[in-house]
Amino acid sequence: MIDIMKTIISIDPGYDRCGIAILTKENKEELLFSECFVTDRDHEITDRVFAIGEEIDRVIKKYKPTSMAIENVYFQNNAKTIIGVSEAKGVCKHVAKQNGLDVFEYTPLQIKTAITGNGRADKQQVAWMVPKLIDYDPEKRAQELGGVSSGIDDEIDAIAVGLTHFSYVKNDWKKDM
Amino acid sequence: MIDIMKTIISIDPGYDRCGIAILTKENKEELLFSECFVTDRDHEITDRVFAIGEEIDRVIKKYKPTSMAIENVYFQNNAKTIIGVSEAKGVCKHVAKQNGLDVFEYTPLQIKTAITGNGRADKQQVAWMVPKLIDYDPEKRAQELGGVSSGIDDEIDAIAVGLTHFSYVKNDWKKDM
Repeated sequence: MIDIMKTIISIDPGYDRCGIAILTKENKEELLFSECFVTDRDHEITDRVFAIGEEIDRVIKKYKPTSMAIENVYFQNNAKTIIGVSEAKGVCKHVAKQNGLDVFEYTPLQIKTAITGNGRADKQQVAWMVPKLIDYDPEKRAQELGGVSSGIDDEIDAIAVGLTHFSYVKNDWKKDM
Repeated sequence: MIDIMKTIISIDPGYDRCGIAILTKENKEELLFSECFVTDRDHEITDRVFAIGEEIDRVIKKYKPTSMAIENVYFQNNAKTIIGVSEAKGVCKHVAKQNGLDVFEYTPLQIKTAITGNGRADKQQVAWMVPKLIDYDPEKRAQELGGVSSGIDDEIDAIAVGLTHFSYVKNDWKKDM
């Protein structure tokens, strides 16, 4: 089943930093919102992930997307990280389903291929391509954030997941237009 | 912060099979409910985990526990399993927090130590001890389930997590009584 609705929430999941974006597509992709949601390192993981779930719920209720696109991170360097990221991913998808959204997962390979044409591209290539595909200026965005550029990577990763989703549903779009 | 409330939900998390128990304690531990919730293997993991979240929500709303005790599974044989189990665990905890419960995680080491006195005990020793600590008859339970004993292990694991929680809060109980 391919989703053909126009506004999506896209997620680069993490329990420490979670990239969130809202994209819409009429003729071309447009970015309505993006953020890097950072959780409190002094809190336990359950509370950090709960805070992410609350934020996702807030963003969904504000922008009313009909689908969620989320990166399927399946490899991490250590067990603690993979458990935390998976808990965050599970909760993001759960909140999406609680709000009636369809959920689509994309692997890093799919994202890199969709954004750069090369499944073995590195993160820098993805980050370099995203502003060419959608109106998002990382430098301007860093200024908006008061000169803090540390969350930009996560925003870009979330946007990349959303662009990947649109590229996967493109053929159905054409039928629909 | 130690929880001193008397009714808890305890979970042996999994996306394929999820052990769920409701325990209460006045003078001694009592089992109010247990089940092994099995998800549909033909469904995608997001939907399987969502079904678990819905079931946990139903059980919480029925029995109104004030805390959740959940096993912190931190090692699995393969990445796919650890991701799926962690997603399920994250969603169980999320549903607990959405319902206002406190969440307590216990490692396998803590559970084995609390139930058998030996942190290196195997699953059989835990399964052997649980019916000696609480009124739960695995054979009778298998009969109730129509001769199906395959979910018993997961119920026992969930009950073991709950008993572990009571053993950890015991000292505070005494102060409270």
